[in-house]
Amino acid sequence: MKIELELAAQRLREHDKILILTHKNPDGDTLGSGFGLYYGLKQLGKQVYLRNSDELPAKFSYFYDSQMTAEFEPDYIVSVDVGDTKLLGTKLEQYADKIDLCIDHHVSNTLYAKETYLDGAASSVSEILFFLLELLGIWFDEQIANCLYTGLVTDTGCFKFSNTGVKTHLAAARLIEFGADYERINRDMFETKSFARIALERMVLDGMEFYFDRRCAYVLVTRAMMEEAGADYTTFDGISAITRQIEGVDVGLTLREIGADDYKISVRTSAAVNASELCRKFDGGGHVRAAGCTLKGNIADVKRKLLAAAQEMLGSR
Amino acid sequence: MKIELELAAQRLREHDKILILTHKNPDGDTLGSGFGLYYGLKQLGKQVYLRNSDELPAKFSYFYDSQMTAEFEPDYIVSVDVGDTKLLGTKLEQYADKIDLCIDHHVSNTLYAKETYLDGAASSVSEILFFLLELLGIWFDEQIANCLYTGLVTDTGCFKFSNTGVKTHLAAARLIEFGADYERINRDMFETKSFARIALERMVLDGMEFYFDRRCAYVLVTRAMMEEAGADYTTFDGISAITRQIEGVDVGLTLREIGADDYKISVRTSAAVNASELCRKFDGGGHVRAAGCTLKGNIADVKRKLLAAAQEMLGSR
Repeated sequence: MKIELELAAQRLREHDKILILTHKNPDGDTLGSGFGLYYGLKQLGKQVYLRNSDELPAKFSYFYDSQMTAEFEPDYIVSVDVGDTKLLGTKLEQYADKIDLCIDHHVSNTLYAKETYLDGAASSVSEILFFLLELLGIWFDEQIANCLYTGLVTDTGCFKFSNTGVKTHLAAARLIEFGADYERINRDMFETKSFARIALERMVLDGMEFYFDRRCAYVLVTRAMMEEAGADYTTFDGISAITRQIEGVDVGLTLREIGADDYKISVRTSAAVNASELCRKFDGGGHVRAAGCTLKGNIADVKRKLLAAAQEMLGSR
Repeated sequence: MKIELELAAQRLREHDKILILTHKNPDGDTLGSGFGLYYGLKQLGKQVYLRNSDELPAKFSYFYDSQMTAEFEPDYIVSVDVGDTKLLGTKLEQYADKIDLCIDHHVSNTLYAKETYLDGAASSVSEILFFLLELLGIWFDEQIANCLYTGLVTDTGCFKFSNTGVKTHLAAARLIEFGADYERINRDMFETKSFARIALERMVLDGMEFYFDRRCAYVLVTRAMMEEAGADYTTFDGISAITRQIEGVDVGLTLREIGADDYKISVRTSAAVNASELCRKFDGGGHVRAAGCTLKGNIADVKRKLLAAAQEMLGSR
């Protein structure tokens, strides 16, 4: 059942032993909103614990509470930024049918919780948490401001994407006022590249090919390249966006070799081409401008099929 | 003489034929604030004209008014984002001692105008203009919102840099409310790279050298490289920031050959090193983390001098 923000705040006020669940492969928003809520509820004198199925990334170490008390039997379970119980991961799936409140911004939320506060127009759950903590009368200290600010910027590409709204900027203004260390956070999130990343970008630029009057960019990243660069899957994050950034490119194809004759393809498109439609030809899917699929076979065949599909999409308009 | 924003607004209200001057090599803020002011004053029924010494870049074509009336004899001259009359450029230097009002955010402003509204804490002149146009009771239409929003984001790296403040986000919230096409603007300003830019980045990554336990990154961009990439000075914008983005790099040195044995050096540093201090050794200067200088001589000598200075700065702490 969907509920209003005021009722969500009341539920939190009414309980004393609260467990917060975040989604697997955690990102800045699930952890930023989760820890924002964690510190807010601590201020109200409650026992709080936050869990994730995966190890918490070092990147967000400034969120973490070295004083987090031992686990306890919760009287209320809240999930943040978890659109589907499948995203709880192996360690947390035990809670799938026990979640009292879900706070989310994914319109695809499956409404698995007893009660759900869903704002599909919010840039991030951290944005929602800003207004929720205000309702709870929390004092926004630097720690809370840093958690929520991080969630805002990681989900919006630092206020660049279309999900950014008036409320996103209003929350950001207040969080900066409350001491969010925005310069350092933005530098760490957006302006710092590892040596492995730089090495990988160099290889990608060196190997990029163009087709169909430069409307299609093609990049192949082999396992050997990943190894040479010292890169892992986290290094790869954002690499496929490079193709679409190039002026005039309507289809960017980024292939990553994940095994022998086995390729994971990320498709990025301009408004002129539907990426999801292109990927559906290969049993993949995704969003209109960012989608993916996998293809097996030798690279010459895989490349030929993908270029043919791209050409068809480009030719159809 | 420095004046308050209210008096600046009053002066604008009192005059009817207003000429707006912007700085040479125009960027998003001088043109964004200039055109924001232009359209605002037009609303008040005034005759307005905007000038620049250089050609107006196609990148900002959505600012321009194809209906801009012929030039006239102004009764009031305003400069925006021009910290020094040297920045007026050749075509506008005739106005150097005739400027009635300067609106600026550079603390280094030489106070050349009869009256100056200076807010060194403002992220951009576009941010100031937002509050000035509010004082003037302007209706913020999409056109004005787009101009001012562009100035905000181009001067702050899309709200990333330390000059971003509470008022920057408050202005952004209102400008989005008023219809600023922020998604498209951000894509055009930050997510679109020309072929020349991609070619140049590839050369920069291919040629980058590291010194002093990788704490110093060194890049040389020759005229031949610029030509091969099809790049001009606008393509180069932001290239020098690449060095500092690499983890562990405290000093980034980017050299651009501007003539025979003549090099323009951009220094970018982490908090560990004062870029301005480094550049002062070569009669240059700038900010704490971004500064510049020029050096003449053969490249081997220039490189040796710069690396020695960088090593000294790194060794001193």
